[in-house]
Amino acid sequence: MTPIPPKPDHTHDTNLTSWVLSAETETDFPIQNLPLGVFSLNELGPRIGTAIGDQIFDLSQLDLGMDQTIKSALKQPTLNALFALPSSQLKALRLILSKSLSDKAYAETLSPHLYAQNICQMHLPVHIGDYTDFYVGIHHATRVGKLFRPDNPLLPNYKHVPIGYHGRASSITVSDTPVVRPLGQTLPPEALEPIFGPTKRLDFELELGLIIGTANELGSPISIHEAPQHMAGLCLLNDWSARDLQAWEYQPLGPFLAKNFHSSLSPWVITMEALVPFRGEALKRAVGDPNPLPYLTDAYDQAFGGVTIKLEAHIKTKAMADQGDDPIRLCQSQATHAMYWTLSQILTHHTSGGCNLRTGDLLGTGTLSGPETSQSGSLLELSQGGKHPFDLGNGEFRRFLEDGDEISFTARAEAKGFKTIGFGECRGKIMPARSV
Amino acid sequence: MTPIPPKPDHTHDTNLTSWVLSAETETDFPIQNLPLGVFSLNELGPRIGTAIGDQIFDLSQLDLGMDQTIKSALKQPTLNALFALPSSQLKALRLILSKSLSDKAYAETLSPHLYAQNICQMHLPVHIGDYTDFYVGIHHATRVGKLFRPDNPLLPNYKHVPIGYHGRASSITVSDTPVVRPLGQTLPPEALEPIFGPTKRLDFELELGLIIGTANELGSPISIHEAPQHMAGLCLLNDWSARDLQAWEYQPLGPFLAKNFHSSLSPWVITMEALVPFRGEALKRAVGDPNPLPYLTDAYDQAFGGVTIKLEAHIKTKAMADQGDDPIRLCQSQATHAMYWTLSQILTHHTSGGCNLRTGDLLGTGTLSGPETSQSGSLLELSQGGKHPFDLGNGEFRRFLEDGDEISFTARAEAKGFKTIGFGECRGKIMPARSV
Repeated sequence: MTPIPPKPDHTHDTNLTSWVLSAETETDFPIQNLPLGVFSLNELGPRIGTAIGDQIFDLSQLDLGMDQTIKSALKQPTLNALFALPSSQLKALRLILSKSLSDKAYAETLSPHLYAQNICQMHLPVHIGDYTDFYVGIHHATRVGKLFRPDNPLLPNYKHVPIGYHGRASSITVSDTPVVRPLGQTLPPEALEPIFGPTKRLDFELELGLIIGTANELGSPISIHEAPQHMAGLCLLNDWSARDLQAWEYQPLGPFLAKNFHSSLSPWVITMEALVPFRGEALKRAVGDPNPLPYLTDAYDQAFGGVTIKLEAHIKTKAMADQGDDPIRLCQSQATHAMYWTLSQILTHHTSGGCNLRTGDLLGTGTLSGPETSQSGSLLELSQGGKHPFDLGNGEFRRFLEDGDEISFTARAEAKGFKTIGFGECRGKIMPARSV
Repeated sequence: MTPIPPKPDHTHDTNLTSWVLSAETETDFPIQNLPLGVFSLNELGPRIGTAIGDQIFDLSQLDLGMDQTIKSALKQPTLNALFALPSSQLKALRLILSKSLSDKAYAETLSPHLYAQNICQMHLPVHIGDYTDFYVGIHHATRVGKLFRPDNPLLPNYKHVPIGYHGRASSITVSDTPVVRPLGQTLPPEALEPIFGPTKRLDFELELGLIIGTANELGSPISIHEAPQHMAGLCLLNDWSARDLQAWEYQPLGPFLAKNFHSSLSPWVITMEALVPFRGEALKRAVGDPNPLPYLTDAYDQAFGGVTIKLEAHIKTKAMADQGDDPIRLCQSQATHAMYWTLSQILTHHTSGGCNLRTGDLLGTGTLSGPETSQSGSLLELSQGGKHPFDLGNGEFRRFLEDGDEISFTARAEAKGFKTIGFGECRGKIMPARSV
């Protein structure tokens, strides 16, 4: 049986326009996107909105004929209650928002609920109960593995089991929160004893973050067929990493302080509904690759579990900022080409032993590097383990991040015949370490 | 300067008695203990109480001359608001509880607030934001290391850096919640491809859990001198583990599904105040051991960072239950003798890179095995990796846990001249795996 493709509807129509004028210019947030986030402005406390052009449409005070459960979920200061609703209700909300922001008849009534993005403060979109980071980027895993094991970069389990580990939820902040260079233990090259001080190998990791929608009970796994019903949407995630701390601490239980000092999340959740036109075939297994075990196998997922998202990382050094220069691009990659395991596969695997996911939980994909070194989503790869400083093209080079460097991620979902939608930015600037 | 020892007060006086008669019999909960927990009973929703003898004293409705902030914290359905208060306020609460439950003048007024423990339902005492598990049990780490590396059991970082990893908060349940045998991927001996099915090497891990009191901000580490002020109390923790899943998945990012299917926590938080008489010298470093780095060094912590807690694990198999037999003891160990790193050292290390701890967060110590194999806090050790089935003494043997096995942990803090206080129980029974 051939799986039925996910079906775009009129909210995805490339000809649909908005009465919000900035949505009709070059923007990440045309009327086809309608991402959800949490913002505040002066005396207005944190509240739910959708990004449209360069504006935020405040959803907290509205009655657009919505169901009472949706209305009360929209009054919360996070998206958790909304994302706990069945996908049919989120789809109903999307239809209402699309109608309200496209039909000119609403312009006068609804304009007072618009706020310029550049005067609003963004917040984490969800309360994150638990954060898990996966390692699905096969080119990243291969390139990083090569630094340690040139002849045998991928471990034997990689193509059988989606590798992941638990991360720290408390230190995840919304984009634009400054990142303080962490202190920690490292074993300097050729030293016999470790030292304690600022990391010398601070890095970024370019990832997508999957926000969990409806939860599952402890002991009740989510099958791969049901997995899509438990996804609320995607964000950009920077899993900042201290490579020298990591090298010293990670045996035998994995990364700990090397990762938990800070992670950055973009403020807008791009809903799975908005991404419908951009779904497609998952990464094809190479000849000789093992078949996934049955609990990770699904014809629909193979046919439509991929998502065509172009990812970019940019850097603005202090020198660039001082000279008023634009950031320069560090890399560009494409999600589906990078992901050995799909979103459904990581979600299903996570719950396969009975672990419960809660609404708002965050599943990072891991670094989504492309097959070429120039498509690497981390400096560890771009500088080949720090051995070959990466040329920024303006006379500056980077092995790892320096104080004052600002890293920003952007992403766009693209498909022929559809309006491109963007993710906004995930940004963080490196601040000097506190004194020891 | 000689550090000043922590000072017991009249609430610890061994001669203090309670008007609650069962507190004067053999009990984990004499008037000197006063642990905090959350219980419910029929129409009474989850509320805060203290255990006294075989009773629970309901603290949610009381006005015993307490500060307004304490009173409102006691009305919450978890201990988080209470544990967020400064330790001076928790000490004030302890004084009030000690007075109220010892002075006979209160007996008549307060008796209606007592409920028999055996008719109450216990709940998780705190909302756990993040759960971290350490690996401070040096005898455990050595014995487990020997199974893999007989000549070099401890990795080079072990005596320099408190090894830890992030665990899963969502799947932590209160004692007595049944534990379903997880399914998962394993690579059977000599097989070339993994299989998916019920774990064959299900194990327990005997741990203490430290509940965080006052929080720290992201980027603001807690020094080792300040660490004790951020501790609310201790519980018993069973970090159930699927050893075969762990062996296959843990490289390179650490344990994941092998641990996240279930963890069990005892319901009563033994407060750091109650433990004052039981503090003492931390484990002495052996000759040749490195000195800890300065951020982990503190004379007070070396002198009084230990805590004399005797830990025990018991098993009741299905056969024992059917025959009405008592559980048999699997092991006994003592916390201070097991812990290479103190509670202050793990808390300080956790925040040393800037990671924020939140009130109610849980820090597991790792398995606290004693130096002898018979003092091992896991079956992995007791059966030497499954090679030598452990003799239960009733004709039954265990390599790993079987369906129907019930594991219970108990603990007692003991010191000469002081009343022994207990931790209650942390218990869980193994249920068969769901069908694949």
